[in-house]
Amino acid sequence: MKSDLDVLMQSRNLDAILVLGNAEHNPPMYYLTGGGHVSSATLIKKRGGEAVLFHQDMERGEAEKTGLQIRSYSEYPYKELLNEAGNDPALAAAIRLKRMFADLGLVRGRVGLYGHTDISSTFAMLTHLRRILPEVEIVGEARDGSLFMYAMETKDEAEVARLRRIGRVTTEVVGLTADYLTSREVRSDEVLLKEDGSPLTVGDVKEKINLWLAERGASPTEGYIFSIGRDAGLPHSQGNLSDLLRLGQTIVFDIYPQENGGGYFYDFTRTWSLGYATPEAQKLYNQVKVVFDKVMENFDLNAPFKDLNRMVCEEFEKMGHQSPLNTAAPVEGYVHSLGHGLGLNVHERPWSGLTANDDNILRPGVIVTSEPGLYYPEKGMGVRIEDSLWVRPDGKAEILAEYPYDFVLKMKKWKNG
Amino acid sequence: MKSDLDVLMQSRNLDAILVLGNAEHNPPMYYLTGGGHVSSATLIKKRGGEAVLFHQDMERGEAEKTGLQIRSYSEYPYKELLNEAGNDPALAAAIRLKRMFADLGLVRGRVGLYGHTDISSTFAMLTHLRRILPEVEIVGEARDGSLFMYAMETKDEAEVARLRRIGRVTTEVVGLTADYLTSREVRSDEVLLKEDGSPLTVGDVKEKINLWLAERGASPTEGYIFSIGRDAGLPHSQGNLSDLLRLGQTIVFDIYPQENGGGYFYDFTRTWSLGYATPEAQKLYNQVKVVFDKVMENFDLNAPFKDLNRMVCEEFEKMGHQSPLNTAAPVEGYVHSLGHGLGLNVHERPWSGLTANDDNILRPGVIVTSEPGLYYPEKGMGVRIEDSLWVRPDGKAEILAEYPYDFVLKMKKWKNG
Repeated sequence: MKSDLDVLMQSRNLDAILVLGNAEHNPPMYYLTGGGHVSSATLIKKRGGEAVLFHQDMERGEAEKTGLQIRSYSEYPYKELLNEAGNDPALAAAIRLKRMFADLGLVRGRVGLYGHTDISSTFAMLTHLRRILPEVEIVGEARDGSLFMYAMETKDEAEVARLRRIGRVTTEVVGLTADYLTSREVRSDEVLLKEDGSPLTVGDVKEKINLWLAERGASPTEGYIFSIGRDAGLPHSQGNLSDLLRLGQTIVFDIYPQENGGGYFYDFTRTWSLGYATPEAQKLYNQVKVVFDKVMENFDLNAPFKDLNRMVCEEFEKMGHQSPLNTAAPVEGYVHSLGHGLGLNVHERPWSGLTANDDNILRPGVIVTSEPGLYYPEKGMGVRIEDSLWVRPDGKAEILAEYPYDFVLKMKKWKNG
Repeated sequence: MKSDLDVLMQSRNLDAILVLGNAEHNPPMYYLTGGGHVSSATLIKKRGGEAVLFHQDMERGEAEKTGLQIRSYSEYPYKELLNEAGNDPALAAAIRLKRMFADLGLVRGRVGLYGHTDISSTFAMLTHLRRILPEVEIVGEARDGSLFMYAMETKDEAEVARLRRIGRVTTEVVGLTADYLTSREVRSDEVLLKEDGSPLTVGDVKEKINLWLAERGASPTEGYIFSIGRDAGLPHSQGNLSDLLRLGQTIVFDIYPQENGGGYFYDFTRTWSLGYATPEAQKLYNQVKVVFDKVMENFDLNAPFKDLNRMVCEEFEKMGHQSPLNTAAPVEGYVHSLGHGLGLNVHERPWSGLTANDDNILRPGVIVTSEPGLYYPEKGMGVRIEDSLWVRPDGKAEILAEYPYDFVLKMKKWKNG
């Protein structure tokens, strides 16, 4: 949580953090500002101090909405800076940053650097800063172990409410998708038809999904998964846009929309078989559902997330499937890990992979996905069930957006055989 | 154009360029790859050589679509790198980059750094690289003067076709907006009404615009402008979502959608007055239109763009308005500059500001906006007219997407007086 930042700074021996870039589509800056139309900003927070947001003068209104201490770049007149820098804009930016640091009493020490922005101009600026302010050491961090990935790992109430809301949007759109699919006419070869009588494709369905999300203030993440048949057996296949929708084939629908403006994600998967299921697919589905339920029952607070993943591996292996526990990089059976943290990044801490560090704990406040699955691409089928779970302060895992687990969806205009 | 890259590298004394990040929403990488679902990639191009794209193994298919030489990160097994790096992922990334450089015969020299990505992990990696490969100097550049901003300044045929297409989408949506507004019922106080009889707000209109764009594969850029009355007189005001649509007020509609996936932008403005115009607003509109037409007539190939802007200042001053030519930072009259380049960035070279460098030339291949405007916020009105223009090889300026210049839009269900 944000309240962990000072402790995390201390553990990294950082005297301050420096966050650069826009508020939107930039998780560290979004995290501290709450998003909004604040662009090319500079946020500086000293350890134990309040964050100060330096903003463009004409974005004062948006900057005020963040609730942070704000200061305008106009306090550092650009023409003077550029003059002092001999017309080198990267040096001018370095001089400005040195002055901002000085105005906050930061004249030496270690400063952590964060944000998603243009690396060329940032690197040019920091190269100058090293020369004109050698007493301050700017340090980066690899993403997975970074201060922000640790802070973001546990969510406060406001964040949980945001994830719950985007979860509701997600399940609404999934429901609309199911209604649309099951109301289609079906051709004699079991292909679904559009309103105009032509075959319904994966691309047609994705177009509708994108619109339904847009209507609800959410952005479809590029490359989300709606795949059928053999593609459903390949966990990373997004589905071919030209594939036809057919009865009796497994459809993996894995959707992870984001709030407009680069905010919070939800992550959700259902697997469907339209009209009927083959006995083999039904058996696979039942096995995944049994394991999915077992995860919910065995959600062990404060244990490493990977322990739960190991249990899932063991359960699937007992059923006769391969898993990463005893097979290196399996290509069928249970081929990925159980889940991941979820927030301003669609994948973040805690991790559940068998080789994850032990500090990826199911502690109160984390939001994680549980997404066991089984994949048999050569048999043309795959099954995954996924919900996003909040580990509540009382230690219970709560599904943030409930949705039914039906596998076979009854077609309204088709009678079996 | 892309074919200018080698010359631009030479002028900067760069032996190679290094571009990092995703293909989408990352102009330098999009520019060289053409976009697509290629994530966390590394592109290296030696001066005089072909670009080589290093990609994640599971994105081989998407990487192939770029048409570039591709190599998989799997050639540098991550476990071995991490082991060699003592489990420090930033050092492992630096070792990998050093090996990629070596495999391309790059063991010393100056390498330009570009891309939009996570600056923390990139800076951590480059800090290690400086230590383990001191013979290679990595250099950044301030954005406006950077190699990519110069290369992107002139567009090839494929790029012009992309801009033309997003221009067509833009004007279609503008037409739908005009049709929707003019078909509204009007209350006795001249407020427009929605289908359900309640007042129509700016927010309602923006929702429709966003949907119409989504249906056409375009993304509304956050914060585009649909502003009425006093807000129309403030060039940067996006318009209040709760403002009501009324007859006889100036509406500035400035829309700059982007192709989905972080591609090319279009930029377009019309000013409307619904039902009727006040004589004062009509006069203002006529003056802007006269100047807009004069720009089209005086489009002087190979002159600095700012010369055209200076002409616009002079014309508006002759009409009795303030302009930046003789007033520092005017708050009414002509308060901004004439236009800007347009492409993978909504604002890019060439620039038209009066203080722009002389190398911002209207050379064949540039695509620029022409957007003269007059603003009187205290009178509750503002007018801007904007089209995006391609300077063709024959030196003529061509509007990429034509749209009528009507100021007063006739209301279908309202009779004057």
